[in-house]
Amino acid sequence: MATRLSVAATHDPQQACRWAVQLEYDGTPFIGWQRQASGRSVQDVLEAAAARLTGGRPVASIVAGRTDAGVHAAGQVAHLDLPLAVSERLTGARLCDALNFHMKPDPVAVLRAARVGPEFSARFSAIRRSYEYRILNRPARPALDANRAWHVRQHLDIARMQAAAALLVGRHDFSSFRAASCQARSPVRTLDRLDVTRAGESVMLRAEARSFLHHQIRNLAGTLKLVGDHRWNLEDVAAALAARDRSQAGPTAPPQGLCLLAVAYPIDPFA
Amino acid sequence: MATRLSVAATHDPQQACRWAVQLEYDGTPFIGWQRQASGRSVQDVLEAAAARLTGGRPVASIVAGRTDAGVHAAGQVAHLDLPLAVSERLTGARLCDALNFHMKPDPVAVLRAARVGPEFSARFSAIRRSYEYRILNRPARPALDANRAWHVRQHLDIARMQAAAALLVGRHDFSSFRAASCQARSPVRTLDRLDVTRAGESVMLRAEARSFLHHQIRNLAGTLKLVGDHRWNLEDVAAALAARDRSQAGPTAPPQGLCLLAVAYPIDPFA
Repeated sequence: MATRLSVAATHDPQQACRWAVQLEYDGTPFIGWQRQASGRSVQDVLEAAAARLTGGRPVASIVAGRTDAGVHAAGQVAHLDLPLAVSERLTGARLCDALNFHMKPDPVAVLRAARVGPEFSARFSAIRRSYEYRILNRPARPALDANRAWHVRQHLDIARMQAAAALLVGRHDFSSFRAASCQARSPVRTLDRLDVTRAGESVMLRAEARSFLHHQIRNLAGTLKLVGDHRWNLEDVAAALAARDRSQAGPTAPPQGLCLLAVAYPIDPFA
Repeated sequence: MATRLSVAATHDPQQACRWAVQLEYDGTPFIGWQRQASGRSVQDVLEAAAARLTGGRPVASIVAGRTDAGVHAAGQVAHLDLPLAVSERLTGARLCDALNFHMKPDPVAVLRAARVGPEFSARFSAIRRSYEYRILNRPARPALDANRAWHVRQHLDIARMQAAAALLVGRHDFSSFRAASCQARSPVRTLDRLDVTRAGESVMLRAEARSFLHHQIRNLAGTLKLVGDHRWNLEDVAAALAARDRSQAGPTAPPQGLCLLAVAYPIDPFA
């Protein structure tokens, strides 16, 4: 109980300062962002490093995107509250350096840190999340990017994938693309962008929305792949979306292709 | 002795066919390309996979660029001789698939394979080798690219690095940039290209030559970095080159930033 009380105490703006941190991580060795009963999470690594700055007093963090096991981030954002006495000795650059030092050698790095007001929430203040999903589309399995892309051997027709993506952009009930474990109250989301591009052997999906359902992008990627290799046509995609039934859409694409690129706020906390 | 004789036998064009293979690998877990008394090399992985196709008969390979421990390749080229009876059952695509299957789960992949004439040597027929050296130039240590870039915190002035690179391009005695262990008969090389570019936080060097001395690119990178962070000026670079003395040039940059991109031949074996 003492531990919980001390965490709660740091949320008192009279005694604590809130910091926003931008994070890069390789998701390969982690069970995902969120702490779980077994295995190491990115959250564990960040909070353990922060606790080194408070003399062992626990520090709780809230994150913009709770990435799954194996999913990467280039621009994740979290916030955490540090005691006033600790915060007074810090600048954004010093907090970056200190956290990066204590997180070694884990593949997690704080890129930027900034003091924010107590009203800022990395999760609830976010107005846009941008993800990239990378497919390595060639016969040979990946060597350099084994943990960074989904390997698809069959040639993907990106013109077909682009046409299918256009059907999915906009405000829809995405029940067909939502994991059974999804905790969101509503399956309705507005997908602002779902671009498909090719650069040599890489096929890149770029998805943007205020928020996503659990597994939504990986389920969209798995469905677009069926269109790209001619197993599905556009009517199949429209029917899958209309069905509002997970079993009617394509399989969940593997996690290692996904990367959280950026999170946007009404006012950039790092500007 | 029996082993050596059977390898030699596969070099007889009456009994063997020569194959060129293009390889991608993540150098992180390897002691380098070349077999050594202890540790696993990329050569070990490739030759062990090839021996699975010959019923255990050893297969020797010759490579274009003997990369060091931790150095990567996106377009390495090697050749190997396979018995006629084995080769007759193969196409380039089948050889790729078979080698990739047997090399699993090592981060080595054959991208292309093609039959070539017995006069082809991956090493001696090569007329150009292209390498990229990547520097991650930002305060925070790398997380996503921990094994793929040299982390340099101090801001690098690439205009200065470009001017220094221009002094190094051309035909020179590169003794100052040559490892003590280098086995080349002459320290004279013609550096055809040494470009320095920036893309966000990445500073990329691109080096091309018919051939390089041992550690030449890493020693050039270590020297250009001293110019980029204003510790050296152009006169220091000119003096280092003129000295023909390894101790007068900059330090050897770490291996993980280096990647062999491509090897060119008078006639593209994979075309």
